[in-house]
Amino acid sequence: MKKRLKELAEWVNGEVVGEGEVEISGVAAIEEAKVGEITFIANKKYLPKLSETKASAVIVSKEVAPSNKPLLRVANPYLAFVKILTLFFQKTDQPKGIDPNAWISPTAQLGRELTIYPYAYIGDRCRIGDHVILHPGVYVGEDSSIGEESILYPNVSIYSGTMIGKRAILHSGVVVGADGFGYVKDGMKNVKIPQVGGVIIEDDVEIGANTTIDRATLGKTIIRRGVKIDNLVQIAHNVVIGEDSIIVAQVGIAGSTKIGKNVTLAGQVGVADHIEIGDNVMVGAQSGVGQDLPANQGYNGSPVLPYRESLRAITVFQKLPDMKKTLIEMEKRLKKIEETLSAKGKEK
Amino acid sequence: MKKRLKELAEWVNGEVVGEGEVEISGVAAIEEAKVGEITFIANKKYLPKLSETKASAVIVSKEVAPSNKPLLRVANPYLAFVKILTLFFQKTDQPKGIDPNAWISPTAQLGRELTIYPYAYIGDRCRIGDHVILHPGVYVGEDSSIGEESILYPNVSIYSGTMIGKRAILHSGVVVGADGFGYVKDGMKNVKIPQVGGVIIEDDVEIGANTTIDRATLGKTIIRRGVKIDNLVQIAHNVVIGEDSIIVAQVGIAGSTKIGKNVTLAGQVGVADHIEIGDNVMVGAQSGVGQDLPANQGYNGSPVLPYRESLRAITVFQKLPDMKKTLIEMEKRLKKIEETLSAKGKEK
Amino acid sequence: MKKRLKELAEWVNGEVVGEGEVEISGVAAIEEAKVGEITFIANKKYLPKLSETKASAVIVSKEVAPSNKPLLRVANPYLAFVKILTLFFQKTDQPKGIDPNAWISPTAQLGRELTIYPYAYIGDRCRIGDHVILHPGVYVGEDSSIGEESILYPNVSIYSGTMIGKRAILHSGVVVGADGFGYVKDGMKNVKIPQVGGVIIEDDVEIGANTTIDRATLGKTIIRRGVKIDNLVQIAHNVVIGEDSIIVAQVGIAGSTKIGKNVTLAGQVGVADHIEIGDNVMVGAQSGVGQDLPANQGYNGSPVLPYRESLRAITVFQKLPDMKKTLIEMEKRLKKIEETLSAKGKEK
Repeated sequence: MKKRLKELAEWVNGEVVGEGEVEISGVAAIEEAKVGEITFIANKKYLPKLSETKASAVIVSKEVAPSNKPLLRVANPYLAFVKILTLFFQKTDQPKGIDPNAWISPTAQLGRELTIYPYAYIGDRCRIGDHVILHPGVYVGEDSSIGEESILYPNVSIYSGTMIGKRAILHSGVVVGADGFGYVKDGMKNVKIPQVGGVIIEDDVEIGANTTIDRATLGKTIIRRGVKIDNLVQIAHNVVIGEDSIIVAQVGIAGSTKIGKNVTLAGQVGVADHIEIGDNVMVGAQSGVGQDLPANQGYNGSPVLPYRESLRAITVFQKLPDMKKTLIEMEKRLKKIEETLSAKGKEK
Repeated sequence: MKKRLKELAEWVNGEVVGEGEVEISGVAAIEEAKVGEITFIANKKYLPKLSETKASAVIVSKEVAPSNKPLLRVANPYLAFVKILTLFFQKTDQPKGIDPNAWISPTAQLGRELTIYPYAYIGDRCRIGDHVILHPGVYVGEDSSIGEESILYPNVSIYSGTMIGKRAILHSGVVVGADGFGYVKDGMKNVKIPQVGGVIIEDDVEIGANTTIDRATLGKTIIRRGVKIDNLVQIAHNVVIGEDSIIVAQVGIAGSTKIGKNVTLAGQVGVADHIEIGDNVMVGAQSGVGQDLPANQGYNGSPVLPYRESLRAITVFQKLPDMKKTLIEMEKRLKKIEETLSAKGKEK
Repeated sequence: MKKRLKELAEWVNGEVVGEGEVEISGVAAIEEAKVGEITFIANKKYLPKLSETKASAVIVSKEVAPSNKPLLRVANPYLAFVKILTLFFQKTDQPKGIDPNAWISPTAQLGRELTIYPYAYIGDRCRIGDHVILHPGVYVGEDSSIGEESILYPNVSIYSGTMIGKRAILHSGVVVGADGFGYVKDGMKNVKIPQVGGVIIEDDVEIGANTTIDRATLGKTIIRRGVKIDNLVQIAHNVVIGEDSIIVAQVGIAGSTKIGKNVTLAGQVGVADHIEIGDNVMVGAQSGVGQDLPANQGYNGSPVLPYRESLRAITVFQKLPDMKKTLIEMEKRLKKIEETLSAKGKEK
């Protein structure tokens, strides 16, 4: 595919400075870019590279001065770069239809323009939207629904009664709707609490490889519109995650916890059960959240503190051996003073 | 399904106070319960809700006074609720037989009343007990056995030579019997130590989605009767977990560690190799266990301390910046005193 | 299989002391070994067991004195033991060919002596080397290649365009080549950054069950020769791991981080994005790495410190409540002295 720079400018709502007829056939990072490719500079400190790059055009922010290189000026260069990358790499594969080696219940309702690979399984009464792609080894349990244009990669398991919205992307090994982890003690024995609720995944959610999202005990576990979840994340029964939140790899969220909108949980964070985390909260990597977190703040540490407090405590922690030495030395000095004063007292 | 309240009372060994003929057709939490449903109150502070709930009957503890609402009095209301929930939601599906799209070795021994879905695979010389359910994409390697009434959800992988007991529940993506992680250095090169042992999973074990349990180097990795394991847990080669223990999500247990009976490891705990953890131990979330833990105690922290000690240390940790300020200020006061005394000494 | 002791000596380049004609038919730990088996002593403190073991021969280090038991003296007894274990347990299975229930693209290039099980899937234009074994449920996406003698266990998912070297072992549930986790904000919305790079896994790599290795955004995620990765590890887009490094279970490595050669990351370690870790570094379990780590050292803690510093800080941390008591008590003593001096001042 080839596009003229002025066409790309229209695509990202930007302004060409210099030759707009130049043909662009690819996208690359500034140091690897070759003639015919477009690249970007998102940070002013890299502007000197403008004169060095072999790229045929460069995406820059609005205030950058003209150069001998054709420029595409936009409000957010990185976002424009991503949009152009998406344009160049969009898949135009035709739907492949339903492979005869897939197993599909006669009671399933199938949309149009599907791609169902061999060894996929669609259970009774499922509803599969238009343009859905189910890769090999995907299992969709009975009474589940998958919204249009969703992609389930190989070996994804969807338990019965799960609702998945439109344009969802579920990577390989994702498990949605397995039983929540709940038992009640009868003497020493652990009696299983039936997990009879379900899972709702709204539109535009992406879920990383081998992540697990459990069904609710009663009611629903809910992943709201636009949430993005990385690999190997554990989301327990009855959790709710608000719109546009970002959950990084290996995070664990325990039962019935509610996460607000636009929250970021960094890698390996653990959140206890029955916690509420407010909108726009950011939690640092490996933190442990055991209490409610008010909105619009950053937190860090295990257990978490407000972000700056956490950094201060960690800084002192790393100097603890010095601090202890000081303390021991001060105690000696104190003792010496006390002895001096006591001797003087006796002198009198 | 409908049951009279007095029938439910027999089922859970409880006592009806009020109208025992009332018909119950469902189960719900106290605020969502509708007419015809039964709910429960496990904690006295919720007793005022007795007069507000729309439920047709309420499970309460033995000392609760009669009310205008029919009551079901029992020793443990939550346990009784779970038992009634189980009664109402028990699956009565008939076995579906063996799908012609499953692959089954001619040398496998199959029990009666099986449900084997398409794309399941049963290797040579396996023994599959009565009433077992193998979902799509389940792999059972050669010489393995699965006890009666066990359920393996989609895409579970059981390596060869694994023994699984009765009534086991293995959720999607579980891997049992992969090679333990063992190498010996030959210069810089890592030489693989053959992993020629196996895995034994006893009766009534439940294993969460995408959890991994490695085979032993020599001997067996053993998960004892009644153990419950959550999602994304790592259990290394030669580990032994004692009866009725609870292993919460994302815990990692390194090689050859022995866990006692009725132990609880909370989420994201890590346990080093060759450790012994005694019976009835509880370990707090995200803790790191690098030493043996005596029985019947709680522990917390990374590295772990006895529970209360850990909380005390954490409390002080969070005040470290204040403590450091105090220390600096005290040092100044100390210096001032020393100067005063030194000046006085010179005065003389 | 049976081997004479002198044959085993040749196999591991060792020296027989005593009867070299003794027949060995198996391998066991020193306490379980029976007549006809060989065992080993790697640590001098176990030498007294030489006279107690029932083994027919014992592998020992070069300086061990002759005994009434046949000895096999070598430079590294444990390594020799592993080599003999490998000899006795090597699989001699004949290739099983391609099962008619596997799905193989007509454009795939297949090597010789393959074993392709039912329900494996090989996409368009893939290249599969000689002697490769693909178990049930393995998915190999289009344009990928698998080097000779590699084994992919059940339900492994390889996304399109992945290159895997020779003698690789990928355990069940491994996912290679899923999209890296990258978004750019457009207002509140998270816009997906296309992940158009790939993954290269070089020769002699082993990857544990349910581990995930993401494809690069642009360029390649690279796992170099001889790297060994345990279960449930997360390796993000554009990461590079150097030769012979060891990555223990549940480690997470964020985007674009470069790990040197012969590095060991212990269990549950987290490494932030865009970090460089030098050759021969060792990082302790549960550590958090947020900065570059120079080569040839040990580190520990979250955030990491040099190993000894970390241990010292932890030691003081565990005594913090005592330290706080001391501080409070010292402050009282200080105040008392100040009052004494002030009173004296007034006396004058």
